[in-house]
Amino acid sequence: MLILGVDPGLTRCGLGVIEGTPGRASLIEAGVIHTPSSMDISRRLLAIEEGIETWISSHRLDGVAIERVFAQHNLMTVVGTAQAAGVAMLVAARHHLDVHQHTPSEVKAAITGSGRADKKQVGLMVSRILHLDSPPQPADAADAVALAICHCWRGSISEKLTNLTSGRSYQSWAQVVAARKVG
Amino acid sequence: MLILGVDPGLTRCGLGVIEGTPGRASLIEAGVIHTPSSMDISRRLLAIEEGIETWISSHRLDGVAIERVFAQHNLMTVVGTAQAAGVAMLVAARHHLDVHQHTPSEVKAAITGSGRADKKQVGLMVSRILHLDSPPQPADAADAVALAICHCWRGSISEKLTNLTSGRSYQSWAQVVAARKVG
Repeated sequence: MLILGVDPGLTRCGLGVIEGTPGRASLIEAGVIHTPSSMDISRRLLAIEEGIETWISSHRLDGVAIERVFAQHNLMTVVGTAQAAGVAMLVAARHHLDVHQHTPSEVKAAITGSGRADKKQVGLMVSRILHLDSPPQPADAADAVALAICHCWRGSISEKLTNLTSGRSYQSWAQVVAARKVG
Repeated sequence: MLILGVDPGLTRCGLGVIEGTPGRASLIEAGVIHTPSSMDISRRLLAIEEGIETWISSHRLDGVAIERVFAQHNLMTVVGTAQAAGVAMLVAARHHLDVHQHTPSEVKAAITGSGRADKKQVGLMVSRILHLDSPPQPADAADAVALAICHCWRGSISEKLTNLTSGRSYQSWAQVVAARKVG
């Protein structure tokens, strides 16, 4: 699966494309769309739309994974973050791509095995999964890559339900990597 | 000035176009874009984008006025409301239109003279300003029309500053209408 992960934000919108299946992933591209706070909000959203449009048009994606925005988190920035996420969803829908939202805890759990892992632990696991010396830079790009990996691993809800009914248990990347090392 | 007002929302996004200058306004069109909650969020945003695109393409607008979304208001719906507002801003920016955001208090104050006016008072004044027997229906369309009227009256910040420096005081529609009746 080729998945675009989006860590939404007005000032820095992280993007990361990975090719992966549960148990393995390789980094295709990672980066950030930056818009200055001095710019009018409507122009910032337009710049984010154009950036995401370019990324989506450049890859034959199978899906888009976006961080779920909660109103309870950071009241100062939630409106702008929600709008950047909305623009990403809009562009994905225009390209008939499936959009899935994942919470930060879901991403941490999928990558490290713990929903309470800190940024350093997530970064370490992302580097290990992608066979990189260090996590993609800057941090927003690394978060977007983590989202894309999480989505590849978690799959769609229907896949998860299929797995549950067929008796397969839910593993995190950490478990898979650990199993590989043991093997 | 031909202004589009947008009362953003996922389930009902109110739209209203008015032709006006401070002291007078006439209704051109009012309506609502409805998207069902059963639809995927990304598809709902796409439907809202397509609807607003049609409205903006159908009128030679001078500007777009959108209700400012605050994170503190209604935590349950703020993310979706912010995303609908973001889509409206995005489409306006694509058409090189100026976008202005107004708070509900600013709209109430501009229309009735009081930022604490209730919906009924605002509706009554909107009907009077537009020479209608009753406010536009449904309520979201009426709110969008009120936003457009507010924007015509308040004008851009630069206009307000010019008025202030030239000694002109700030009047509400209510004062203008009252002055007309006295006259």
